[in-house]
Amino acid sequence: MTFSHSHLLGIEPLSPPEITEILDLADQYVALNRQDMKHSDALAGLTQINMFFENSTRTQASFELAGKRLGADVMNMAMQASSIKKGETLIDTAMTLNAMHPDLLVVRHPHSGAVDLLAQKVNCAVLNAGDGRHEHPTQALLDALTIRRAKGRLHRLNIAICGDIAHSRVARSNILLLGKMENRVRLIGPPTLMPSGIADFGVEVYDDMAEGLRDVDVVMMLRLQRERMDGGFIPSEREYYFRYGLDAEKLGYAKEDAIVMHPGPMNRGVEIDGEIADDINRSVIQEQVEMGVAVRMAAMDLLARNLRARPHEVLV
Amino acid sequence: MTFSHSHLLGIEPLSPPEITEILDLADQYVALNRQDMKHSDALAGLTQINMFFENSTRTQASFELAGKRLGADVMNMAMQASSIKKGETLIDTAMTLNAMHPDLLVVRHPHSGAVDLLAQKVNCAVLNAGDGRHEHPTQALLDALTIRRAKGRLHRLNIAICGDIAHSRVARSNILLLGKMENRVRLIGPPTLMPSGIADFGVEVYDDMAEGLRDVDVVMMLRLQRERMDGGFIPSEREYYFRYGLDAEKLGYAKEDAIVMHPGPMNRGVEIDGEIADDINRSVIQEQVEMGVAVRMAAMDLLARNLRARPHEVLV
Amino acid sequence: MTFSHSHLLGIEPLSPPEITEILDLADQYVALNRQDMKHSDALAGLTQINMFFENSTRTQASFELAGKRLGADVMNMAMQASSIKKGETLIDTAMTLNAMHPDLLVVRHPHSGAVDLLAQKVNCAVLNAGDGRHEHPTQALLDALTIRRAKGRLHRLNIAICGDIAHSRVARSNILLLGKMENRVRLIGPPTLMPSGIADFGVEVYDDMAEGLRDVDVVMMLRLQRERMDGGFIPSEREYYFRYGLDAEKLGYAKEDAIVMHPGPMNRGVEIDGEIADDINRSVIQEQVEMGVAVRMAAMDLLARNLRARPHEVLV
Repeated sequence: MTFSHSHLLGIEPLSPPEITEILDLADQYVALNRQDMKHSDALAGLTQINMFFENSTRTQASFELAGKRLGADVMNMAMQASSIKKGETLIDTAMTLNAMHPDLLVVRHPHSGAVDLLAQKVNCAVLNAGDGRHEHPTQALLDALTIRRAKGRLHRLNIAICGDIAHSRVARSNILLLGKMENRVRLIGPPTLMPSGIADFGVEVYDDMAEGLRDVDVVMMLRLQRERMDGGFIPSEREYYFRYGLDAEKLGYAKEDAIVMHPGPMNRGVEIDGEIADDINRSVIQEQVEMGVAVRMAAMDLLARNLRARPHEVLV
Repeated sequence: MTFSHSHLLGIEPLSPPEITEILDLADQYVALNRQDMKHSDALAGLTQINMFFENSTRTQASFELAGKRLGADVMNMAMQASSIKKGETLIDTAMTLNAMHPDLLVVRHPHSGAVDLLAQKVNCAVLNAGDGRHEHPTQALLDALTIRRAKGRLHRLNIAICGDIAHSRVARSNILLLGKMENRVRLIGPPTLMPSGIADFGVEVYDDMAEGLRDVDVVMMLRLQRERMDGGFIPSEREYYFRYGLDAEKLGYAKEDAIVMHPGPMNRGVEIDGEIADDINRSVIQEQVEMGVAVRMAAMDLLARNLRARPHEVLV
Repeated sequence: MTFSHSHLLGIEPLSPPEITEILDLADQYVALNRQDMKHSDALAGLTQINMFFENSTRTQASFELAGKRLGADVMNMAMQASSIKKGETLIDTAMTLNAMHPDLLVVRHPHSGAVDLLAQKVNCAVLNAGDGRHEHPTQALLDALTIRRAKGRLHRLNIAICGDIAHSRVARSNILLLGKMENRVRLIGPPTLMPSGIADFGVEVYDDMAEGLRDVDVVMMLRLQRERMDGGFIPSEREYYFRYGLDAEKLGYAKEDAIVMHPGPMNRGVEIDGEIADDINRSVIQEQVEMGVAVRMAAMDLLARNLRARPHEVLV
């Protein structure tokens, strides 16, 4: 086994062989999930706790199903309705949960870095399910698996990431992963939604879709993160769609067999034309969701193997 | 096996032998649920997702327990706090869940027909847990099982359904089921709460309890659905109870051994007198709840058998 | 087996040998929870329902994990969003759940006595997870286990319970348990937060921390229950901390090896100094949380054994 980490906090610390190992194992879980008997005992006897400090139907559901199908005891903590309200700090909450001996802690938090901080305080495996504008590693891994299955490889591809780059942890994790695997990444979006210093990441930056999409293999659209635009520039939906929304005309600049991706939930008619989203010859948006469950099963399985290989605490 | 459907969307498509098969299997699950060891592996390895777009403590709990006792991996989606808020459509939400490969999808939705629509978009078994004013098939099945166990048969009975017929999917599904099984159904309620054209369903309509309850075997009270009366006639509770609330005097018109039913939650002193609701010689309201879990176990078991008999998708 | 009850409604009905039996079994579950494989089949086939009429992240999580690790089918009922809103009474809700044949019902309720009332109406084992100002038996048991493990015994100790005694079911259950096990209990707090007639419980009452903490083995801090102070005296946080908050100076009056406890969630800087709370040489606050899961596993295991020993209902 190559994967040697205690946590999955981001794409940044992962090596290309580790990424490949996760995706290879995920391929096996895709096969399991397509059977009627979609249950294994890989995590039997372990406890998984999902702590979501931000609502997220699909990501939480994906982790919950992943854990249940692997036989873990899974518990969701609705952190809005929690002790946080009673004046308890994030760290106190984490320490409390830690004392209940979870093995896997899945955390989403609105602040960048909060999940890393938390991982230092607990003695179980922590999975980052999205922290602020920082990272969302399982999203990048599921996108990578989707691309690899559609294109037959995950290197030397031209990939465009389009839209609200500045507020997107999805973009950040994808840029890191696709770079590590030696792809050419282009970012397309209005300059106001482009982070400063982004060119240092080895990407090409465009503010015109026609130019940026030329001959790409993959068109990855992003969600417009209005909820994270505090006081800054907020484009009108109509103007945004006109300039950056993916429609048939703009998609025409990409390669003929280019695939279309979106992390969901979609704003149809804002980021993407509804017909393109539903076109089963181009859109792999449903596959992304399917890969999500498999990638999370793989990540938790590998973390649990490392967990079990650790020296044990002395009992009683 | 007689039951040949891929979904349970309503009573309408079911044949009398199919109804009987569900009830016969449910009888076995009643026995299981009365044991200490109330767990089987009928749904082991399968994934059940409950999507409730309307709150319902008891129906969701009943489906959740049914699935867990049959060994499924069960997940609840709180759809209020979901992506629907972020502008995603019902169909996108359904497609997303579908991509996670559930086997059984239990759906409640405030709009009539929404569950049927959803069933066309997914490739798993869909169970309607109530859609608008349309159908609530498991409620009609649990009522039927309760009647069959109390009366020893489910045909040639005189059954009165009383109250707010117009807003009630419970009434609609019960009228269909009891008609198919060759019972005489009477509807009693104020003309303003009686749907137009209802006589075409082969029922007798009354607006007077004394007249309508005469010699019936079963008195089925309905909940006053104030939340569905948008702008229309809303009776005062006091007047409603006086004319249509079930009290000892009105129950006196029914047969001496007539049973009293209510789908819950009850408004005591509005639809029904509290003492009658609690009278264990007449009221079968608790039995209805018990039968609910058993009927849902039976329905999901039969759907899962058909699911497993389908030709498989090719793996990987 | 010594423990002979059908419910765990409070500490009051328990005998010292019964308390010891629960703690001894809990010690075994502490060992189980520290392993990777932290799952047993003690409750396999049984159904546990958690009914929380008050929010409580940690207590509900503790019971949920306890049940899942013992193999029960566990269901949480969010009672705020429930039928209670639709006008249904507490008893109707309890009867409805009872008809679904739970084996273990875990109940938290804002009204003292509500859980006892409920236990009379159902035929399953009821565990009180806190009712008003009355009792919170599993909290007292986990505190007792924490003390016994830290001090090597649970008798002839000097134990101070400090703060808002009047509004605290935690204090009440602890006073009962620690008294039964022959410890000397002191209560320290402002007279306005001290219940009248408390001296009848065989405790010593102080309103000065320096005096009350002299030579104690255990310092048990309480949470300031602002949410339960309806209209009465509400101290300012600053003044409260000055007089009753545990800081290094006040802790100096206790024995050199005295341990510090808090049921959580803590208000740092109100009831307790943050550094003391985090001092692993003095504070056993994390151990309390760990013991919580183990004690609840033990209590549910013993109740289930008594449940299985009952004469069965006749099937079908």
